[in-house]
Amino acid sequence: MFEAHFQTFEDASERAESAARVAALRADLKKRGLDGFLVPRADRQQNEYVPPGEERLAWLTGFTGSAGSAVILLNRAALFVDGRYTVQAAEQTDPAVFEIVHLADTSPDKWLEANLGAGAKLGYDSWLHTSEGAEKLANACVAAGATLVAVDGNPIDALWRNRPAPPSGPVVLHDLRFAGESSADKFKRIRTELTKLRADVLLVSDPQNIAWTFNIRGNDVAHTPIPLAFALLPKEGRPTLYIEAGRLGNNVLQAVEDVADVRAPDALTRDLSNLKGNTVRLDQASAAHAITRLITDAGGNAARGPDPITPMKAVKNKTEIAGSRAAHKRDGAAMARFLAWFDKEAPRGRLTEIDAVEALESFRRDTGALKDVSFPTISGSGPNGAIVHYRVTRKSNRRISKNELFLIDSGAQYQDGTTDITRTVVAGKPTPEMRDRFTRVLKGHIGIATAVFPENTSGAQIDPLARVALWEAGLDFDHGTGHGVGSYLSVHEGPARISKLGTVALRRGMILSNEPGYYKTAAYGIRIENLVLVIAEPEPKGAERPLNTFETLTLAPIDRRLIDVKMLTPKERAWLNSYHKRVRDVIGPLVDAPTREWLKRVTKKI
Amino acid sequence: MFEAHFQTFEDASERAESAARVAALRADLKKRGLDGFLVPRADRQQNEYVPPGEERLAWLTGFTGSAGSAVILLNRAALFVDGRYTVQAAEQTDPAVFEIVHLADTSPDKWLEANLGAGAKLGYDSWLHTSEGAEKLANACVAAGATLVAVDGNPIDALWRNRPAPPSGPVVLHDLRFAGESSADKFKRIRTELTKLRADVLLVSDPQNIAWTFNIRGNDVAHTPIPLAFALLPKEGRPTLYIEAGRLGNNVLQAVEDVADVRAPDALTRDLSNLKGNTVRLDQASAAHAITRLITDAGGNAARGPDPITPMKAVKNKTEIAGSRAAHKRDGAAMARFLAWFDKEAPRGRLTEIDAVEALESFRRDTGALKDVSFPTISGSGPNGAIVHYRVTRKSNRRISKNELFLIDSGAQYQDGTTDITRTVVAGKPTPEMRDRFTRVLKGHIGIATAVFPENTSGAQIDPLARVALWEAGLDFDHGTGHGVGSYLSVHEGPARISKLGTVALRRGMILSNEPGYYKTAAYGIRIENLVLVIAEPEPKGAERPLNTFETLTLAPIDRRLIDVKMLTPKERAWLNSYHKRVRDVIGPLVDAPTREWLKRVTKKI
Repeated sequence: MFEAHFQTFEDASERAESAARVAALRADLKKRGLDGFLVPRADRQQNEYVPPGEERLAWLTGFTGSAGSAVILLNRAALFVDGRYTVQAAEQTDPAVFEIVHLADTSPDKWLEANLGAGAKLGYDSWLHTSEGAEKLANACVAAGATLVAVDGNPIDALWRNRPAPPSGPVVLHDLRFAGESSADKFKRIRTELTKLRADVLLVSDPQNIAWTFNIRGNDVAHTPIPLAFALLPKEGRPTLYIEAGRLGNNVLQAVEDVADVRAPDALTRDLSNLKGNTVRLDQASAAHAITRLITDAGGNAARGPDPITPMKAVKNKTEIAGSRAAHKRDGAAMARFLAWFDKEAPRGRLTEIDAVEALESFRRDTGALKDVSFPTISGSGPNGAIVHYRVTRKSNRRISKNELFLIDSGAQYQDGTTDITRTVVAGKPTPEMRDRFTRVLKGHIGIATAVFPENTSGAQIDPLARVALWEAGLDFDHGTGHGVGSYLSVHEGPARISKLGTVALRRGMILSNEPGYYKTAAYGIRIENLVLVIAEPEPKGAERPLNTFETLTLAPIDRRLIDVKMLTPKERAWLNSYHKRVRDVIGPLVDAPTREWLKRVTKKI
Repeated sequence: MFEAHFQTFEDASERAESAARVAALRADLKKRGLDGFLVPRADRQQNEYVPPGEERLAWLTGFTGSAGSAVILLNRAALFVDGRYTVQAAEQTDPAVFEIVHLADTSPDKWLEANLGAGAKLGYDSWLHTSEGAEKLANACVAAGATLVAVDGNPIDALWRNRPAPPSGPVVLHDLRFAGESSADKFKRIRTELTKLRADVLLVSDPQNIAWTFNIRGNDVAHTPIPLAFALLPKEGRPTLYIEAGRLGNNVLQAVEDVADVRAPDALTRDLSNLKGNTVRLDQASAAHAITRLITDAGGNAARGPDPITPMKAVKNKTEIAGSRAAHKRDGAAMARFLAWFDKEAPRGRLTEIDAVEALESFRRDTGALKDVSFPTISGSGPNGAIVHYRVTRKSNRRISKNELFLIDSGAQYQDGTTDITRTVVAGKPTPEMRDRFTRVLKGHIGIATAVFPENTSGAQIDPLARVALWEAGLDFDHGTGHGVGSYLSVHEGPARISKLGTVALRRGMILSNEPGYYKTAAYGIRIENLVLVIAEPEPKGAERPLNTFETLTLAPIDRRLIDVKMLTPKERAWLNSYHKRVRDVIGPLVDAPTREWLKRVTKKI
């Protein structure tokens, strides 16, 4: 009936192969005179989702998580993962080959410092590490009396039979009716920033920034519509986009060539070598150390720092904001259909986590506008809901039982906007504890949704508003409250975020998530997530500073059965009732009659 | 009648002398082959209050503020000050000699980069700059094609006739009944930290840390009872305290020599030169660059970072906490007498800001326990209250008029504890706006006072609770909400603070200020400050994390005439009433009958 096109539920680990692959790699390292090699889960642009041919870490170790790295020495090998992945890594890897190291205990550089012998030569692929990362490794080698050696060509690529080819799919225009600003105008603004930064050229290595600047989109990785390209943007003269011209249709090529040159990817290294005497601004978060080296070897000055495009992209223009509002209406209608369906089906006790994922994606596809899901849906019933980054597989799939909480965190890629929403619902009757916890999370959610704060306030400064109701009960959640969201781009976008690390000011036009939660290990998880837009707050009389607040973009009911109404303040109750009225008024006309009836019922005043 | 012993109201600027002094300095620089010289407002230990002989900046420029620096080139001279001091600097300096540069516009290193000629030699005294500071200056010189040169002996000292001699007053023991922990036990704990830091020796350059570690106090600078000494604390073997033994009475010398060696200050440089092969931990915030150089020149390894003593000192032990509570009762009684006196006298319209300072200090001296004020009292009526760091002088002294707000921020040094309190009161009838603003500041104060937060929460994470009520009206205050406070030590103590920069976790036993404010330029200032102690909050049922909260230490009424009661939530009103009941119950028995009657009246339930 329902099916998922944009995510799978297979556990793709090739754990059984890893012993032989590691042995082959070691043989190759010996031939090269190396004592070890680093295998990060990274491509050349530090993307969150990487193309299949860049999944070297999974190929070698069996571990398929989205973050981690391995160190292969001649006589031992370690896989480094964070708290999200320690269980999965242990399951997916061969304990005879890999020891699993928790990043909270030991970082790869500390481990190398302790385990590399004096005189050892450690190889690494300088295209897969940022300069900061490479410097850390080099320091660790120095401390161990060893040497870090950049290899020529990644040895894994030669060993990997049937390694998937690089993406070659079409690149399309992101039409002005979605983008709202021409490339030429964006170039102008970027050049102003380059002047301020005293840079001659900007190397754009983050494909999200390429996509935004050139108003193009691609299909090179899952869930984020980016083309894997680079660009050079000089303060004077035409920019160059490095991508196979054949991947651009005639109309796309023409549009890009109106304002920039298009050159083959190979030309990048040659062009970087011609920047002698130039100060080249590099994105410290995505530029490979290989690029820094190419520039400095050629006598250029590699100036590392944040890419000035990142904060420009984060502030959405009127067109992008209108697009996001439209996308959220569409997505809200699909969510309403899903939640109504769930309410009807779940009490029968037959639904599984995968059923829910497939139904939700199907409802979204029914809109006719779904390009992709913006990330693999997190669908966790009961104890699985407490695993913050849970991804359901055929093996982990769990029936959604009566009176359990069910958490579903999902998002869509539409051409006019990217969405990200989490709802927690109960199939049956919640315990008083569940209602207490849910209501505290809701109070935090409303604390952010209704926050009023002066211009230049950072996300860190409002983050506690999402937590105080939990703190009072001796509870908290161990993730940020919100991340930036792109406009038909990555669902995780910098530079702003709502978290104690979010030191960037929240600017009008930024879209962020508002997603406090609570997780009771081995029992249940709660998260309530809407996307919010930073907007101006009308200034009260006597105000001395411009004020901002949020407009909530996401439109879907919040499960009233889970709310302990007497814990809400009048102001909080008013927010919930007015939000639910908006959901009813805006989404009601977009759904079928039974869903509309359901919607009326679940958005009633409390 | 009343008088102040511990602060003066003179404007001590020697502005008239500065042209001649600068000319003499320039002549000396030429002799030395230098093209310029740096004059920071700093002593060898980066103290907040410095001895008179270290006031080189004031001697040379006329500017007597507590922060700033000057650059003297052969043909021009600049004085750098922050926003607090731009008006004062302009008044106190000769415009024919000095240009005033606002630090917000240009830092000294940026200014040097632009104004030093290529080939220039810029002199500096490496004892008066931290290594980080010296490195910034060196980089600026490199950028300008100039050279930074460490001078031998500060040239100002030779020119300064009748330069005050270094402090030579007695150093006393800080008795165990105040300190609560022996030096020997403190050494043990510090050595454990040194092992973790992989350091062989700790150089203690912050006199507050010396005072804490050795359980001694001094009288070398105003307002902070520190002896200006250094110490070396090896991981193994006896520590050495560098101070003139003659300044220690027999009992003090004996107590110190029980656990450490005492050597003359001169011996420090010699001993630093003997640390070849040792890793010496240096406090990055207070250690002079001269020290780094002595160590590295001798083949030692200067490891810069935070002094491990600083976070240990910040967590007060039971004895120190009991002392602080006692100090606050004593201080609260003096404050009650002062506020009662003010209420009686102020409506006659004859009091001045200086009268208030003198009365308050006199009431504190009447306790028989006052050792010093913990900083010069800020006493600002009307528009002067809006100047955050206002210091009243004979010239600025203002009559406290009817219906104006009066802000008084003061503190005391008692042997058992250091206090810091701000009250804002009205002599007459406040405007509705004043009451609105005062009530918002009070809501912020109560927000901090009643905050409940998990262990490991930083000051930054609770800072917004002091601001949301102001934000909602488009208002804010441009200073942190709170700073750490020492135990008969500095009223400004690291490492924790409540501010957006306060990333250090708040630990049980820390004492901090809680001082939100609001300042209407040229009209009035409001601040409500109590000291608070971080304590454990009883854990509610089902709590998963240890919780902390604050105990308010300061005991003095908050002006109820300035409160708009209907703006307070029931919880806020309850806090105020219970606080006032505590003030009445605890302070009432300590004051004379008329003050007690007054106290009853002003602490009535609202």
